[in-house]
Amino acid sequence: MSDETWLRTSIGGSTADAITIRGRDLATELMGQVSFTELAFLLVGGRVPTPAQTRLLDAVLVSLADHGLTPTVLAARLTYTGAPESLQGAVAAGLLGAGSVFLGVVEDTAAFLCELGERTDGSEAALRRAAEEGVRARIADGRRVPGLGHPVHKLEDPRTPRIYAIAEEDGTLGVNMRLLRAVAAAHADATGKPLPVNGAGVAGAALADLGFPPAIVRGFALLARTAGLVAHLAEEQASPLGMALYREVDRRASP
Amino acid sequence: MSDETWLRTSIGGSTADAITIRGRDLATELMGQVSFTELAFLLVGGRVPTPAQTRLLDAVLVSLADHGLTPTVLAARLTYTGAPESLQGAVAAGLLGAGSVFLGVVEDTAAFLCELGERTDGSEAALRRAAEEGVRARIADGRRVPGLGHPVHKLEDPRTPRIYAIAEEDGTLGVNMRLLRAVAAAHADATGKPLPVNGAGVAGAALADLGFPPAIVRGFALLARTAGLVAHLAEEQASPLGMALYREVDRRASP
Amino acid sequence: MSDETWLRTSIGGSTADAITIRGRDLATELMGQVSFTELAFLLVGGRVPTPAQTRLLDAVLVSLADHGLTPTVLAARLTYTGAPESLQGAVAAGLLGAGSVFLGVVEDTAAFLCELGERTDGSEAALRRAAEEGVRARIADGRRVPGLGHPVHKLEDPRTPRIYAIAEEDGTLGVNMRLLRAVAAAHADATGKPLPVNGAGVAGAALADLGFPPAIVRGFALLARTAGLVAHLAEEQASPLGMALYREVDRRASP
Amino acid sequence: MSDETWLRTSIGGSTADAITIRGRDLATELMGQVSFTELAFLLVGGRVPTPAQTRLLDAVLVSLADHGLTPTVLAARLTYTGAPESLQGAVAAGLLGAGSVFLGVVEDTAAFLCELGERTDGSEAALRRAAEEGVRARIADGRRVPGLGHPVHKLEDPRTPRIYAIAEEDGTLGVNMRLLRAVAAAHADATGKPLPVNGAGVAGAALADLGFPPAIVRGFALLARTAGLVAHLAEEQASPLGMALYREVDRRASP
Repeated sequence: MSDETWLRTSIGGSTADAITIRGRDLATELMGQVSFTELAFLLVGGRVPTPAQTRLLDAVLVSLADHGLTPTVLAARLTYTGAPESLQGAVAAGLLGAGSVFLGVVEDTAAFLCELGERTDGSEAALRRAAEEGVRARIADGRRVPGLGHPVHKLEDPRTPRIYAIAEEDGTLGVNMRLLRAVAAAHADATGKPLPVNGAGVAGAALADLGFPPAIVRGFALLARTAGLVAHLAEEQASPLGMALYREVDRRASP
Repeated sequence: MSDETWLRTSIGGSTADAITIRGRDLATELMGQVSFTELAFLLVGGRVPTPAQTRLLDAVLVSLADHGLTPTVLAARLTYTGAPESLQGAVAAGLLGAGSVFLGVVEDTAAFLCELGERTDGSEAALRRAAEEGVRARIADGRRVPGLGHPVHKLEDPRTPRIYAIAEEDGTLGVNMRLLRAVAAAHADATGKPLPVNGAGVAGAALADLGFPPAIVRGFALLARTAGLVAHLAEEQASPLGMALYREVDRRASP
Repeated sequence: MSDETWLRTSIGGSTADAITIRGRDLATELMGQVSFTELAFLLVGGRVPTPAQTRLLDAVLVSLADHGLTPTVLAARLTYTGAPESLQGAVAAGLLGAGSVFLGVVEDTAAFLCELGERTDGSEAALRRAAEEGVRARIADGRRVPGLGHPVHKLEDPRTPRIYAIAEEDGTLGVNMRLLRAVAAAHADATGKPLPVNGAGVAGAALADLGFPPAIVRGFALLARTAGLVAHLAEEQASPLGMALYREVDRRASP
Repeated sequence: MSDETWLRTSIGGSTADAITIRGRDLATELMGQVSFTELAFLLVGGRVPTPAQTRLLDAVLVSLADHGLTPTVLAARLTYTGAPESLQGAVAAGLLGAGSVFLGVVEDTAAFLCELGERTDGSEAALRRAAEEGVRARIADGRRVPGLGHPVHKLEDPRTPRIYAIAEEDGTLGVNMRLLRAVAAAHADATGKPLPVNGAGVAGAALADLGFPPAIVRGFALLARTAGLVAHLAEEQASPLGMALYREVDRRASP
């Protein structure tokens, strides 16, 4: 195999003296200079974000990190109960439930908006038209409009106005976030039933506005959740609930 | 079960109007106010770090995020090859290899140092004595001293002096990082073969100095690696190598 | 929660004296009496299979267990390289790649056939008509017909005629396997390009004929693969290739 | 790299016409000829077992497959709740909890017995002496003797006498199973507190007697559990409990 360009990575590498990430020297150019959020942006996106982009990405990651004793957190804690020697196994088990039902919305919303956005020139009128068409097509197909509605936050997801406010303050409000607002309005018009933009939806829109392709935005949600999972496993080490939960389930399940 | 205190979490929760993390309102007190690194510290440690502590944690996370096409990255990319519909599965597969051989050093070093540190009053002489005893005991048992030596960075791991410099600049150099330096010196004295403190070892010492119990420090290494894995999966989406790697292995393995 | 029927399982349970699976006493009625394949059928399907059904299920499991150094096997072995203390983590990593690209065909074929089969009375003519309609609809939509074609076994997948022969010998040839044969013929007619029924496709058809819903048939493929993964990890323990593979990739990837 | 023997597998491979496992043609020599249990033995052990060995391995696999709503089953079902599109992710999550606390006993017992057995000539007196020494050493070190005691089956684990009876009937009772019986007797003598041999312990002894190295025996436990997990996921598809369990936990956890 003479042509070996297929076995390359442009993310990073190391020699005896140096470690490089995206062409920057890890020790002298990145450590102590950039935050972990900036590094994550650089790793995935290939460029260092502006301070405003970093603040938006930080807000998105902060918004997605934890939601209490969710199914994925319970899976991680129950896995730790059986395999405390393998913290990585418990974190992995927790991430495996971050699929279509919960975190998939981040990706679905980004994909929906990016597809709609391609047809517009970015003007307010064009966004409104694209949103109306997109919503109408979804309703006609009997498919849900992604990013709207939440089982707990029925009137308003508290994360949504906050992300919009941050983006507006810092000038990072982009086409996808604007379009999502238009989608919510178009959906309310079409159905007569207003649904709030949910936190996963606005996160997907913000990540798309930061320039990430829809297919990878779920990765940032996984990164955020990892922090929450590690916290729950630290709590499980200090005050375990996995074994007691199992015992109660087992007792109640036995006829 | 009248006493339900076992089924509690002090990490976070939500109501129809609000999401709370560690007693702080997510939307108004955390989003846009704290970085993701500060949030991770708060989630796991229960308190907001000082700016100097944040800078040290950022440096540690940045130092551990990526090392090129490692076995764990290859596992993640090959998993994506077979199951591109499940980004979380590929990230999970990548984390599962972050065990005793690679990232275990972070935890082993923190545990070793914390145990030694308990016997000292923190004075330089006491640390030196504890390090000498600890190293001697390990050598007598035929066990490795954790945190020393690196297969690639044989003379010096470039991350190590950088983490020490950051901690010294900011006044976050603690007992565990000082002790690790004494351990390296004691090991060189005892064996006549100086080994550099490696990046995983200094990360373990720094995380212990930030107040995290040894049993959970590997969690921060997993968090750091998640960012690297997401970056490699973004690259795998754009320029895949998994299938070509399989094909070459399969061809060469067939007699 | 007075009505607790939601927290029940009809699969199994245990008391101080006995363990029960699907209403049978594990020690006296199952161990030494039924094979693991019969038990798997009982666990998933709720009934003990006939000898002919067992032979078909055995043949399907045997056919799917191993295919050499596939991407999923490589992921498992590379995961073991980093975390040899966690055999379960390496097996899990191997299973995570058993998604849409490789094993998904088992499920896709079963789902496709079950949907087509519902419209027929089981007569040969009706199956042929259903197959022709199903193939035509797929081609019109630009979607692949599942279960046909194989990157390596271009003319014939050696597993396919064998599964058919076993089912015919034993009288377990059912509607789905017959329909799959009709689908292959209809596809050849419609495209002029005959494609062989592949091993995953015929496995899906056979599992559907054994009475399993399409949504769970992939589970049998995962069970089969687990045996192959354990074998590869036993070989990795005795003659490891993970670290050498990584070193070669790393060397070639460094510019 | 001229010497490529490192990139070989002796497990299996395929060409355009044939698939081979351990040197046997999959279609003509294995499918329809051997059971899945025999294939698993062949894959891992490299040889086809005798009928008596197959019956013992079947009994071991059957004994380990399911134990109701255990922590690992709950983790799998809760993972499915969030990611129903990825059956492999739910199975993987379930396997990840099969660690030191539950299934580790299989491996620990096999390792303990194999180490003790090396010092004996296989005579009853020698086994008794080895057992006494092994138990005494464990007690002196304050370590548990593996394979004894069970939280639910306090007097007798119903699987244990059954496995012994099967091995005695078929002439497959080997040194490790005999030694485990001596270990239980020596432990009762030394402590005055008789503990039953548990099902995981006898499984470990039987797998060691079948010739498998201790480091891989947990793999058979994982194989057995995979069947149980697939059954629970089939039940979760038909009558889900994951979401209701989460809702109840969330409600009770909220202060």
